[in-house]
Amino acid sequence: MGFGEIDQKAINSIRVLAVDATFASNSGHPGAPMGMAPVAHVLFNNFMKFNPKNPDWLNRDRFVLSNGHGCMLQYALLHLFGYALSIDDLKAFRTVDSITPGHPEAHDTPGIEVTTGPLGQGICNAVGLAMAQAHTAATFNKPGFTISDNYTYCFLGDGCLMEGVSSEASSLAGHLQLGNLIAIYDDNHISIDGDTNVAFTEDVVKRYESYGWEVLVVDDGDNDLNSIEAAIKKAQQSKDKPTIIKLRTTIGYGSLNQGTHGVHGSPLKADDIKQLKQKFGFNPDESFAVPQEVYDFYGKHSSAGAAAEEEWNKLLAQYAEKFPKEHADLIRRQTGDLPEGWEKALPVYTPADPAIASRKLSETVLSKVESVIPELFGGSADLTGSNLTRWKEAVDFQAPSTGLGDYAGRYVRYGVREHAMGAIMNGLAAYGTVLPYSGTFLNFVSYAAGAVRLSALSRVRTIWVATHDSIGLGEDGPTHQPIETLAHFRALPNNMVWRPADGNETSAAYYVALTSKHTPSIIALSRQNLPQLEGSTLEKAIKGGYVLQEVEGAQITLISTGSEVGITVDAAKYLLDNHSIKARIVSIPSFEVFDSQSKEYRLSVLPDGIPSLSIEVMTTLGWERYSHEQFGINRFGASGAYKDVYKKFEFTPEGISKRAVATINFWKDVPNIRSPINRAFEQLI
Amino acid sequence: MGFGEIDQKAINSIRVLAVDATFASNSGHPGAPMGMAPVAHVLFNNFMKFNPKNPDWLNRDRFVLSNGHGCMLQYALLHLFGYALSIDDLKAFRTVDSITPGHPEAHDTPGIEVTTGPLGQGICNAVGLAMAQAHTAATFNKPGFTISDNYTYCFLGDGCLMEGVSSEASSLAGHLQLGNLIAIYDDNHISIDGDTNVAFTEDVVKRYESYGWEVLVVDDGDNDLNSIEAAIKKAQQSKDKPTIIKLRTTIGYGSLNQGTHGVHGSPLKADDIKQLKQKFGFNPDESFAVPQEVYDFYGKHSSAGAAAEEEWNKLLAQYAEKFPKEHADLIRRQTGDLPEGWEKALPVYTPADPAIASRKLSETVLSKVESVIPELFGGSADLTGSNLTRWKEAVDFQAPSTGLGDYAGRYVRYGVREHAMGAIMNGLAAYGTVLPYSGTFLNFVSYAAGAVRLSALSRVRTIWVATHDSIGLGEDGPTHQPIETLAHFRALPNNMVWRPADGNETSAAYYVALTSKHTPSIIALSRQNLPQLEGSTLEKAIKGGYVLQEVEGAQITLISTGSEVGITVDAAKYLLDNHSIKARIVSIPSFEVFDSQSKEYRLSVLPDGIPSLSIEVMTTLGWERYSHEQFGINRFGASGAYKDVYKKFEFTPEGISKRAVATINFWKDVPNIRSPINRAFEQLI
Repeated sequence: MGFGEIDQKAINSIRVLAVDATFASNSGHPGAPMGMAPVAHVLFNNFMKFNPKNPDWLNRDRFVLSNGHGCMLQYALLHLFGYALSIDDLKAFRTVDSITPGHPEAHDTPGIEVTTGPLGQGICNAVGLAMAQAHTAATFNKPGFTISDNYTYCFLGDGCLMEGVSSEASSLAGHLQLGNLIAIYDDNHISIDGDTNVAFTEDVVKRYESYGWEVLVVDDGDNDLNSIEAAIKKAQQSKDKPTIIKLRTTIGYGSLNQGTHGVHGSPLKADDIKQLKQKFGFNPDESFAVPQEVYDFYGKHSSAGAAAEEEWNKLLAQYAEKFPKEHADLIRRQTGDLPEGWEKALPVYTPADPAIASRKLSETVLSKVESVIPELFGGSADLTGSNLTRWKEAVDFQAPSTGLGDYAGRYVRYGVREHAMGAIMNGLAAYGTVLPYSGTFLNFVSYAAGAVRLSALSRVRTIWVATHDSIGLGEDGPTHQPIETLAHFRALPNNMVWRPADGNETSAAYYVALTSKHTPSIIALSRQNLPQLEGSTLEKAIKGGYVLQEVEGAQITLISTGSEVGITVDAAKYLLDNHSIKARIVSIPSFEVFDSQSKEYRLSVLPDGIPSLSIEVMTTLGWERYSHEQFGINRFGASGAYKDVYKKFEFTPEGISKRAVATINFWKDVPNIRSPINRAFEQLI
Repeated sequence: MGFGEIDQKAINSIRVLAVDATFASNSGHPGAPMGMAPVAHVLFNNFMKFNPKNPDWLNRDRFVLSNGHGCMLQYALLHLFGYALSIDDLKAFRTVDSITPGHPEAHDTPGIEVTTGPLGQGICNAVGLAMAQAHTAATFNKPGFTISDNYTYCFLGDGCLMEGVSSEASSLAGHLQLGNLIAIYDDNHISIDGDTNVAFTEDVVKRYESYGWEVLVVDDGDNDLNSIEAAIKKAQQSKDKPTIIKLRTTIGYGSLNQGTHGVHGSPLKADDIKQLKQKFGFNPDESFAVPQEVYDFYGKHSSAGAAAEEEWNKLLAQYAEKFPKEHADLIRRQTGDLPEGWEKALPVYTPADPAIASRKLSETVLSKVESVIPELFGGSADLTGSNLTRWKEAVDFQAPSTGLGDYAGRYVRYGVREHAMGAIMNGLAAYGTVLPYSGTFLNFVSYAAGAVRLSALSRVRTIWVATHDSIGLGEDGPTHQPIETLAHFRALPNNMVWRPADGNETSAAYYVALTSKHTPSIIALSRQNLPQLEGSTLEKAIKGGYVLQEVEGAQITLISTGSEVGITVDAAKYLLDNHSIKARIVSIPSFEVFDSQSKEYRLSVLPDGIPSLSIEVMTTLGWERYSHEQFGINRFGASGAYKDVYKKFEFTPEGISKRAVATINFWKDVPNIRSPINRAFEQLI
């Protein structure tokens, strides 16, 4: 379309804002915003479809800044295009309780799609956003009704490309032929350690070709706006391949230190800023000063975006008339609410039902709810037959040309890519029309720790079906047996860990996980069979912790989770038969959910007056919060048949009883034993 | 050299052992061993240099089975070549306390170099082993004295290639031009979810070319032994590029289900085994039966290996005469002991010394000890200037042709590749001549959780220099501020987490980390300045926990770590001045090390009779083990100047005092307050 003076002024306005904000906060990364301002300008102003007045418009183009440290670029753009992000918000960059934190966070800042900063995550989120779009289009579009056709754009830097998680997601994106995904690689040759030549000399073009991507190169990303425009145009035309544009830029363009790592992570010096503003035609004595014509210029694009949404809304109204069911479904999905009455599909059990592995119980839940929750969008990291994450009639989410499935399919073959799977789920969840869950062994959720953390921080609803959850997996041995894993994820804020003990608790775990719109879940599930327990109900279990068996005159409370609850029930019998000791039994399938109950309720579950012993085949660390004494495994596990391994570690009725007796003896002289629920003060939240 | 009937018999012996062992244990993975038996045979018998009678010979070729689930391949080879792994050990495959666990574990099984199974790790370990070899050769070889020239061979499967960690390490290996590394990719087209076409369609040849590897292809890995041999020969000749050989094989070769995922993770059925043994000329009624001529045949190679070691020992004896200093250093390094008196180089401090960030204190330690501990081999994941992991005069470990360093260099530019860095450190540590440490932000050690877990399980000495350890990093915000991280790694068995409070504690952390031969460490270090504390000494701090300030008549014990200890000291003053409350102060820089002290000592630090309050700007989960009440952060952090963030969360003398007063009030009516150190029973270890 031809670029003129106003384009350059707009680009320089972005640069100057990034310089001013990092200088004002004496912190941050000016270099990437300065280098990527030209491509950001061309992308946002000449291509992207969005309405700043409604950042939630479903068919908006998505933008992800995978090199999230360059967030002043994104904040500047959001401000200039008229999102609810004022110049004062820019001035508050990186100060406490601002909406312009040190890295972009999705939950509080309008226009931020996903939380980035930890390198490599954003490009995976973008893959998830693109998958969700392809799925939404395949599910909802009808002849004459293109409800969904947005692109997902992603900026990323050398750091993102070095992180393995980006390799995983990029390989999968190529396999899935996601033509709606366009990544722009800021090839600035600089990372924190200096020239990328010290560590990163691979051939990125060839690597992305090997993944099946379209690869384009723009040699002068600093000045050649026409080539940038042509490349993005070409990328849009690549319908069965994602595209990456390798864009040579100069980090910190305009600074006296441009092209060096000196401009990467530190504000520019005052005299450098002065010369830069002079060079760019800005008043060196002013800060945060944007020429009105730049606001006006970008405002035109924003108005066009608002008009586009208006058009789309009209189309959607017609769609509503012609396809009322689909329309209602699409609208409902975006609220995050599940279809009314969906919970009736959840299976419940009685003690007469047979012992079943909780991974199998999980499969039953998924198979029963998938038809009533059409947004459920599952997968596994190459462990489908072990995780039991795929319902029988599921169609795979695959490029139609492969003959292996189609984009309306709801089951993803993620391959052995746990970290990308977690990060892709964050993108899927952020899109607004799908509810992602995925399977792997519990031990390998740790591979995805970086992504799980961002699920929690971003407040998205993702569900990990984490099977083979303990030494109970048996023969695979210590390399696969979690010890520290539950403690890790229980310590993560805004994350639910569930470890159900039987069928009713498994249904309860799913009930809470599926209805918690802003909290991710990890559901830890057994490989081995578990009995259906007397005393468990869905209603009790959704409280996160409850009394499974009450006994009058109990001398001890035994607390357990998952596969050990059944053994604890046997231990209680053993104690009564062999020691005439009465034990009450508590199941706490979820610490986090139990913690959210009233203190009164929690004290009714874990009362004062008698000692308690917790039983779980994991680290004891953290159990001190709920029990007086802890029986666990503070070492690595063992390879062998699962019953042999349980015996080795004494997780038997006898082994538990021995420790229960020791607990009672140890506490017998303490008057008025206090429940650990009692605390001197409340934690800040 | 020409292959004959005996070769085929040997190959089939490997296959049959894998089939018998998985059948006997009713568990395991026969498919990969059956498919890779030919290449394993050619590699071990025609190329590899090793002496089964001395698995620790320094110059042996290293072998890594990155697809560790195929471990019956490795166990069969070790048995057949005469390692101390008997036929009974094979019969005990995957049973409790055997030396043939479900996945290879380095610490108990002779001939296993590294612990594998979690996919993608082994190839990274192999990169580390190859780096260590290159470094050892560059450091110790002299004209006429090639002390080190071994190769590192690695088998890997599709799963390893899909894991991002392998991408990270492979890109780095190409950059480092590691010609001593030869990987063999078992291209069998099968993973657990079935045909790899469902998820893995990238062009592996092109991908590895993009990393700068030599890539060779063998089309018939089932039968074409000559091509396998030629490929390995060619790979050995590639001196400035690592090589990957893409080897097309048939998984479960010989089974009725060969080439399907049915043979991947389940034993063969009895009738299938019968036909297989008949087809291979084995007695179908016998199990674990190895033809004597196979033992004899392999025995010849093992004898040759023993002779090669004998020759090498002679060379080493001459080397000892000519280069006594280097010789002594090389011998000492292999014992794991540090040079006598090294600890004198550790800096100590007095309260008169200025406040210094503990990352800076760490830099001082490294700079002072590097010359007395020549095996120290450091690096950072692109955060050198932030982690302060590089001493001033360090030479980079780089291919000499780059002009950026050489292989005798001791500082690695890992790039933004935390997970591979952790896994590479495991390989480096396993080699026997280097002591690896590496830096990143504490929050991003989580990216490497899979590798850290294997450091602990493998009992290797690796050190993470984990800076920016809390909300104290300030402006970078919640995406970078650890909350759950310490709890995670404190819960990991055989892993030390250190969070030093000042200079003496930093020296103590390094003292214990450097001298613990079989335990990895994570040293959490501050970005912000910390005062040198009255009462801290290296001697006290190496106990993991100690009384920093004792007060007669104390009403409360305040317990803290790291950057909060100094604030806690101020809080104690505040309590005295404003509330006339006497508080004693305990510092616990390392839970794990403190736990290993006598109960008597621990009770002297955390005595009965008064309540205690712990103070740490992280999750409170786990602190209940040591304190009656906990002050922490059970939510995500905030972006802002670090003092503002501390204030927001009330980690100030006032905020701590408020909670100390609440603690005292809450416990004042409890007679005989028990220290949490008292427990009803000991944990199993």
